[in-house]
Amino acid sequence: MTESRKSLLINCDMGESFGTWQMGQDQEIMPYIDMANIACGFHAGDANVMQRTVMLALQYNVKIGAHPAYPDLQGFGRRSMTLAKGEIRALMCYQLGALEGITKACGGSLHHVKPHGALYNDMMRDKDTLLQVIQAVSDYDEELLLVLQATSRNQEHQELAAEYGVNLCFEAFSDRAYQDDGLLVPRNQQGALLSKDEAIAQARAIMQQGKVSSVRGTELTMQIDTLCIHGDGSDALPIARQLYEQKIKDQ
Amino acid sequence: MTESRKSLLINCDMGESFGTWQMGQDQEIMPYIDMANIACGFHAGDANVMQRTVMLALQYNVKIGAHPAYPDLQGFGRRSMTLAKGEIRALMCYQLGALEGITKACGGSLHHVKPHGALYNDMMRDKDTLLQVIQAVSDYDEELLLVLQATSRNQEHQELAAEYGVNLCFEAFSDRAYQDDGLLVPRNQQGALLSKDEAIAQARAIMQQGKVSSVRGTELTMQIDTLCIHGDGSDALPIARQLYEQKIKDQ
Amino acid sequence: MTESRKSLLINCDMGESFGTWQMGQDQEIMPYIDMANIACGFHAGDANVMQRTVMLALQYNVKIGAHPAYPDLQGFGRRSMTLAKGEIRALMCYQLGALEGITKACGGSLHHVKPHGALYNDMMRDKDTLLQVIQAVSDYDEELLLVLQATSRNQEHQELAAEYGVNLCFEAFSDRAYQDDGLLVPRNQQGALLSKDEAIAQARAIMQQGKVSSVRGTELTMQIDTLCIHGDGSDALPIARQLYEQKIKDQ
Amino acid sequence: MTESRKSLLINCDMGESFGTWQMGQDQEIMPYIDMANIACGFHAGDANVMQRTVMLALQYNVKIGAHPAYPDLQGFGRRSMTLAKGEIRALMCYQLGALEGITKACGGSLHHVKPHGALYNDMMRDKDTLLQVIQAVSDYDEELLLVLQATSRNQEHQELAAEYGVNLCFEAFSDRAYQDDGLLVPRNQQGALLSKDEAIAQARAIMQQGKVSSVRGTELTMQIDTLCIHGDGSDALPIARQLYEQKIKDQ
Repeated sequence: MTESRKSLLINCDMGESFGTWQMGQDQEIMPYIDMANIACGFHAGDANVMQRTVMLALQYNVKIGAHPAYPDLQGFGRRSMTLAKGEIRALMCYQLGALEGITKACGGSLHHVKPHGALYNDMMRDKDTLLQVIQAVSDYDEELLLVLQATSRNQEHQELAAEYGVNLCFEAFSDRAYQDDGLLVPRNQQGALLSKDEAIAQARAIMQQGKVSSVRGTELTMQIDTLCIHGDGSDALPIARQLYEQKIKDQ
Repeated sequence: MTESRKSLLINCDMGESFGTWQMGQDQEIMPYIDMANIACGFHAGDANVMQRTVMLALQYNVKIGAHPAYPDLQGFGRRSMTLAKGEIRALMCYQLGALEGITKACGGSLHHVKPHGALYNDMMRDKDTLLQVIQAVSDYDEELLLVLQATSRNQEHQELAAEYGVNLCFEAFSDRAYQDDGLLVPRNQQGALLSKDEAIAQARAIMQQGKVSSVRGTELTMQIDTLCIHGDGSDALPIARQLYEQKIKDQ
Repeated sequence: MTESRKSLLINCDMGESFGTWQMGQDQEIMPYIDMANIACGFHAGDANVMQRTVMLALQYNVKIGAHPAYPDLQGFGRRSMTLAKGEIRALMCYQLGALEGITKACGGSLHHVKPHGALYNDMMRDKDTLLQVIQAVSDYDEELLLVLQATSRNQEHQELAAEYGVNLCFEAFSDRAYQDDGLLVPRNQQGALLSKDEAIAQARAIMQQGKVSSVRGTELTMQIDTLCIHGDGSDALPIARQLYEQKIKDQ
Repeated sequence: MTESRKSLLINCDMGESFGTWQMGQDQEIMPYIDMANIACGFHAGDANVMQRTVMLALQYNVKIGAHPAYPDLQGFGRRSMTLAKGEIRALMCYQLGALEGITKACGGSLHHVKPHGALYNDMMRDKDTLLQVIQAVSDYDEELLLVLQATSRNQEHQELAAEYGVNLCFEAFSDRAYQDDGLLVPRNQQGALLSKDEAIAQARAIMQQGKVSSVRGTELTMQIDTLCIHGDGSDALPIARQLYEQKIKDQ
């Protein structure tokens, strides 16, 4: 997916409530985003929450993506797990199918896949896990875009995915600080999370110039197709709204 | 689905293992059946078990059906639950989609839906639940057959399903005794479960003459499209094999 | 437990968060209550949440009670389930033990048991379920108080519990309207839930005069030992604070 | 716990069924063992299974131990998980308490604790995890024995546990091959699992002479207090019976 800068898409994790427990501000944020990454019941979400979230996305014409995870509700999919060969494929196809089942019953269709939490981190860190993720998407439906983190390895990842007929979509983060190597400053280090104003500034730079600056001021020149805002942060709504208005203005 | 007697299909619940726990003899029974009702992770099964079972069904060219249930692993989906409006639709689309996701990644497609345990009983007992089940199948994919228990109300059920464009497939049980009204003798009553020989005799009568006799000897004349054998019973394998051989002979 | 009116205890459901999902305002409400009914992981809570909640209760010298439920996280224990003979005993002893395990590791001890949600309703409605609950508490630890809803059947319940050596503690609700027969107006009827001001007025009447008036104005004269405030309601904190101040003033 | 050789205790994992799924041969093996390590619902077991298993242990006068695990039913507790500080303590106290709750309602008491699967391996491999396990047992109940694998580090482990007032019980495995350093030959290496006859021979050597030989023939001289037989292996029952008869003969 090669997008001109102005059409950079905003993606946001959605449908992360569970049963009676609420999380995020889906109702408020949905109008301002382009791609909803909807939890599939393994780290968050359940059939009811998914159905509600899919209908909300359809109402605002937001692209629906699956947000599959390791099976770990209590740990919110943030605990890495060593799985046997073939298990990642099975759990991804299960979750993609579950979301597509609910989506098609509501008259919609899937657009993309973005792994969640520890599965996302493991995939970015470990080539074998990435390969299993790519193969799962390929086996499930080659038409789905796979969202990976934009890094200096974009090219290499693109080639790997192409072998399996899968198209990638590279995402940057508005609210996280970057290192010179294009990786994120780890959460437990100072300055890892940007303030609301810094996040908006970083998001604007990405949207308008297609680039991010590292914490040391180095300009990073990775291809970026989509910008992630975190729906559970308290600043998510104002950030989403400002980026949305910026996009309108830029058009 | 109107089937001539000889083409009566044998269906069996499959994929009811979970994690390390084994149930049934899927490997042994699969060669002898026509339709596999595969558990979808709510009462039994998990993504791995489902993947394994789907591949086994494809190997023997057995039709793949979803076997959705209430969310209740510990109770094996046998405990009735009062759900809110819309929940049955959501949980059925979730489970149908999950199984279809795994199935299509393996190169197959879904053929039918047979609710499990308490959801099956509630649907046969309560018209509103049945309506929700029919609507869920209709919203998900009208091409899927919905398996209901063959009873004296077949006609009424057929009409209800037709309103939503859903086709039904009526099943009888080889190993359960029937009452005069076409309902099963409740499990907790004496004689509810037939012996292996009685089950084979009853199955043959259904296959060859399309009819069942009640415990009182009354001949019941319901339309029967498929015959269920219970994969977890110890006699499942010999029954499946004998019925299979009978079918071959009859052809 | 016969308490003079002034020492009427305030109880509140606590520890109903799960994993990353927050519920209630435990931190804010704990200082104002006497008895914390702590979720035990079946309808809400997990080992971490329980540990945190127990430590909070100990910090404010609040009596710790178990709040056991049917196994149903997604439905928050609000769905009734038909269980086999002996299952209620097993699941209650499991949950009471789990909470006591965490409590004793933190240096505290259990004081009471209050079943949650559908288990509470089933116990108040169905004598056999009540009997199983009483027997479970008796088998587990006779010293624990069992909280039942105060009704016109208090005497009968007291006698039943006494047969098993169990002491009861009768609770009224500050925020629910009462019928003439001492039962609550069902949630789905108009006026079932009181406003904040009505709830405070009803709570004061119970605390100072030991009585409740029904929606028709009939004065109900049941023994009431404790008053329940619902921690998940938005008015819980102001109600808790006002009742606490009232108690201080009355002493 | 210093035991003379002849009183070496046989321990076995028990209660690893879940819901309708059966595992092991608890009924058959229980008469021949001394210590039952009972699953606590996190990797296997549920309240019903635990209640049944506890009653069986009491019937044969077998010492009851808790077999706590990571929260992972689908993976049978065999997947390592990175937990936050304090989580191991919480989940151990929860599980120990749950089993003790059921045990005391049946008139018994807890004797020991043996972590399961990945938690066991992590504890033997990682000193910080071991420390958290020891502290959890210490906070819960100092009187409980903690079962660790007998290794060349017994002395070091004993000293660490002693700091927290916890007594250790060292176990060897009848059916696993040993390396020269006292560690087990990893499961994925050839010869890791002993045959039935080898297992009985190794068990006898441990029982009668208190020693194990490595695969290279080196005689290992670790203190061994208890011998583990694996209840899910097909040879578990004959091994248990032979060791039991050996013990009787030796007395």
